[in-house]
Amino acid sequence: MKVLVANLGSTSFKYRLFDMADERQLARGGIDRIGSESSRVVVEIGGARREANGRVPDHAAAVRACLEQLTDPRDGCLGDPSEVSAIGFKAVHGGRFSGAQRVTGALLDAMEEMNDVAPAHNPPYIRVMRLLAERLPEIPLVAAFETGFHATVPDPLRSYGVPHEWSERWLVRRWGFHGASHRYIGWRAAVLLGRDDARVVSCHLGGSSSLCAMRGGTSVATSMGMSPQSGCSHNNRVGDFDPFALPYLMRVTGKSLTELLEDLACRGGLLGVSGLSGDVRDLEEAAANGHARARLALDLFVAEIRRYLGAMLVELGGADLIAFTGGIGENSPSIRESVCRGLDELGIVLDAPRNASARQEGPIGAAAGRVAVWVVPTNEELMVARQTRQLLAEASDDRRGA
Amino acid sequence: MKVLVANLGSTSFKYRLFDMADERQLARGGIDRIGSESSRVVVEIGGARREANGRVPDHAAAVRACLEQLTDPRDGCLGDPSEVSAIGFKAVHGGRFSGAQRVTGALLDAMEEMNDVAPAHNPPYIRVMRLLAERLPEIPLVAAFETGFHATVPDPLRSYGVPHEWSERWLVRRWGFHGASHRYIGWRAAVLLGRDDARVVSCHLGGSSSLCAMRGGTSVATSMGMSPQSGCSHNNRVGDFDPFALPYLMRVTGKSLTELLEDLACRGGLLGVSGLSGDVRDLEEAAANGHARARLALDLFVAEIRRYLGAMLVELGGADLIAFTGGIGENSPSIRESVCRGLDELGIVLDAPRNASARQEGPIGAAAGRVAVWVVPTNEELMVARQTRQLLAEASDDRRGA
Repeated sequence: MKVLVANLGSTSFKYRLFDMADERQLARGGIDRIGSESSRVVVEIGGARREANGRVPDHAAAVRACLEQLTDPRDGCLGDPSEVSAIGFKAVHGGRFSGAQRVTGALLDAMEEMNDVAPAHNPPYIRVMRLLAERLPEIPLVAAFETGFHATVPDPLRSYGVPHEWSERWLVRRWGFHGASHRYIGWRAAVLLGRDDARVVSCHLGGSSSLCAMRGGTSVATSMGMSPQSGCSHNNRVGDFDPFALPYLMRVTGKSLTELLEDLACRGGLLGVSGLSGDVRDLEEAAANGHARARLALDLFVAEIRRYLGAMLVELGGADLIAFTGGIGENSPSIRESVCRGLDELGIVLDAPRNASARQEGPIGAAAGRVAVWVVPTNEELMVARQTRQLLAEASDDRRGA
Repeated sequence: MKVLVANLGSTSFKYRLFDMADERQLARGGIDRIGSESSRVVVEIGGARREANGRVPDHAAAVRACLEQLTDPRDGCLGDPSEVSAIGFKAVHGGRFSGAQRVTGALLDAMEEMNDVAPAHNPPYIRVMRLLAERLPEIPLVAAFETGFHATVPDPLRSYGVPHEWSERWLVRRWGFHGASHRYIGWRAAVLLGRDDARVVSCHLGGSSSLCAMRGGTSVATSMGMSPQSGCSHNNRVGDFDPFALPYLMRVTGKSLTELLEDLACRGGLLGVSGLSGDVRDLEEAAANGHARARLALDLFVAEIRRYLGAMLVELGGADLIAFTGGIGENSPSIRESVCRGLDELGIVLDAPRNASARQEGPIGAAAGRVAVWVVPTNEELMVARQTRQLLAEASDDRRGA
C-alpha cells in the first residue's frame, strides 16, 4: 500500500510518498506559489531531484502535477496514479471528529465549526480537501487530526474550570495538538530506551511549539489547550493568555474582539514580543547584537517551555527521557541549553559538547543526569501514513466482515 | 502606631487591629449584613467577645460602630479613635498603582480602570474606600495591592506573548495576586528554615488559589496572570482559559462576550465543574458519596495545582520548602496528599500521620524527602499592617526631610 502524506499551505502543496509495506519513503516533493503565473514542481526520488515549471491554478492541479512526476515512465517511482491508496492530511481541529477519519462532508462541516478556534489552520485545509474530494474523487482522502493522540489524557488534565455544559455539550477542553509529532517521539522513545513503559517528555519546538507528557507512548498531558494558539508562545501566535484582559483591551485600544484575537493569532508570540521576527534564528542573531526585545522574546519562549516542562515532570513523577524535536528543538543548542539550565537537582544535566554538536538523533544528556536527554528529529508524515494505512485496513476488514 | 486592617465584602466589614510596636493583634471584629434592618457588630479583645445589634446603613457607619466598640470605656482597647493611625486594605488590582499606596482620587480611578479585569474584587473596594475617604477624612486610608509582591518577577516570566505595545503601553502582564499571603509565607519560611536564601513554593489554596515561587523571600514566579480569575481554578472563578474558545462559544451558545466572561467569573471553577458547590468540603463529602462531577472538580483542582507546582520547581531548580496555606491548604489533608502524590523522585514525600493530624503550623514532610513540606497558616492582615506602617513612616520621613 502506498500513501501520500500532504502538507498544505494556502498557496503550497508538499508531500511525502510512503510504501507502507516497509514504511520506506519513496519520494518527496511539492509545489510553491500555486495560482501564480508559473509554479515550480519539484520531486526527489532516491536522491535524484527533478524540477518542472508550469501554471498550476489550484491544489487539485497541484496534486495531478505531482502524480504526473511520480508516474513519469523515465524516472518515476509509480506505474500508475491508482497505486496511491490514499492521501493523508495532518489536519488540526475536527471538533467532534478526532483521530484518523475519512474526509466527508460531515467531517468538513465539523472542521468548519472550529474555524474560529483554529483560524490559521482549519480554513486552508478545509478548502483544499473540499476541492480534492470534488476533483479527484478516485483518491480516498484521510484526515489524521492532531488532537487524536491526546484523547488518552485523563479528564482532570483535559478539563477547564468552566460550567460543565461547556465541556459536555460544547466540547470545550484542552484538546492538545502536534499529535503526529508527539506520537512519533513516544514510539521512538520506546525503541531508543528498549522499554515500552517509559515516562517521556516530548518538547516539540518550532514555528508552533508544544510539550507532551507520555507514559508508555500514551499522552497523559499536553501544554496546548482548546486552540492551537495556546500553551507556549509560538512564532506569531500568542500562547496562553488571560481572557479577562480582553474587555479592558477593547476599551483602551478601541479594537473589536475579532481584531484583538487576530492580533493574538497573527501578531503575537515571538514576533509580537520582539517586534522583529518570529524566527528564533533571527532573534538569536539580534539578541547577540544587543536587541533587548529579541532577548526578551527568547527568554519568554524558554520560560514558557520550562513552565510546562515542570508541569510534565510533576505529572509523570519524574521522567526517563526528555526529547527535543521540531525545527528549533532539533537545531538550537542554545534554546536546549537554556531550557535545561539549573535542573541538576531534578536529574536533568546536559553534556555541553554533545548538545552543541548534535546534528541528528542522539543523546545530549550528561552521565551525571538521572534523566536521558535526546535530540530526536520528528517524522510526523510517517505517523499520518501509518494512521491512514490503519484506517484503510479497518475499512477493508469492515467490508469483508459485512 | 496602631493600624486597623480591613477586609471588605459588599455587605460586610471585618477587621483586625494591630499594635505595630510589637505587631500584637489587639482586637478583631466586624459587621455583617450592612444596609439591612439590623446588623450584628462583633468585637473580640483579648479572648473576650462582645456583640451589639443595630442599624448600620453603610460601610462608613460600620467603621464608626467598630471604633465605638474599640473605644468603649468599660472594655475597649483604645482610649480614642484617633489612636488608629490608618486603615489598611488588602486591595486587589490597581493597574499602574502597585505596592502600598495612600488612597487618593487618582488611585481609585486607576483601580476603576481595572474593573473589567477584577470584576468580583475591585468594585466593592472602590465603593467603600471612596465612601470612607469622604466620611472619615480624619483616618488615613492605605491600599496594599496584592500585585505589589510580584513586582520582582523577571520580565520573561511576567510577560505574555502579545504585541509589545500591549505590555508596554497597556500593562498587559502576569500581575499575580495573593501578594500578602505569599509575602507572609516567604518571611515565615526564612524564620522556620533559619536561612534567608531558601527556595520556597507557597501554595495558597482557598476560595481563591495561587502558587508562588520565591527565592530569599522574593517572588520570582506566580500562577496568576493579568486577572484574579487566572491560574488554578477557584471556588467559582475559571482559572486559566483559552480566549480562542470565546468567539466559538458566542456562536454556539448565543451569549455575548460579557455574559460568557460573567459565567467564567461567577459560575466557573469548582462550582462550574461540579455543578454542585465551590467549597472543597462539600465536594469531598459528595465525592465520597459517589458524585462523579464533585470528584472531577477535586481532581481538576489538584491537577492544576500540580501543573504549577512543577512550573515552580523547574523555575527554582528544586525547592527547599513547600508551604501549604489558605483555608484549603491549612485544612485539607486529602488535597495536600493528592498534590504531593508520587513525587518521591523529585524529593517530595509526605509523612502521612503528620499530614492527617496537622492543625497548626508544623512540618508534614517525611524524613525521606529532600524538600521540607509544612503547613503554615497565613497572616495576610499582618503583612498589610506592616506595609501600612512602612508607608506612613516613609511619608513622615519625607515630611521631616522637606
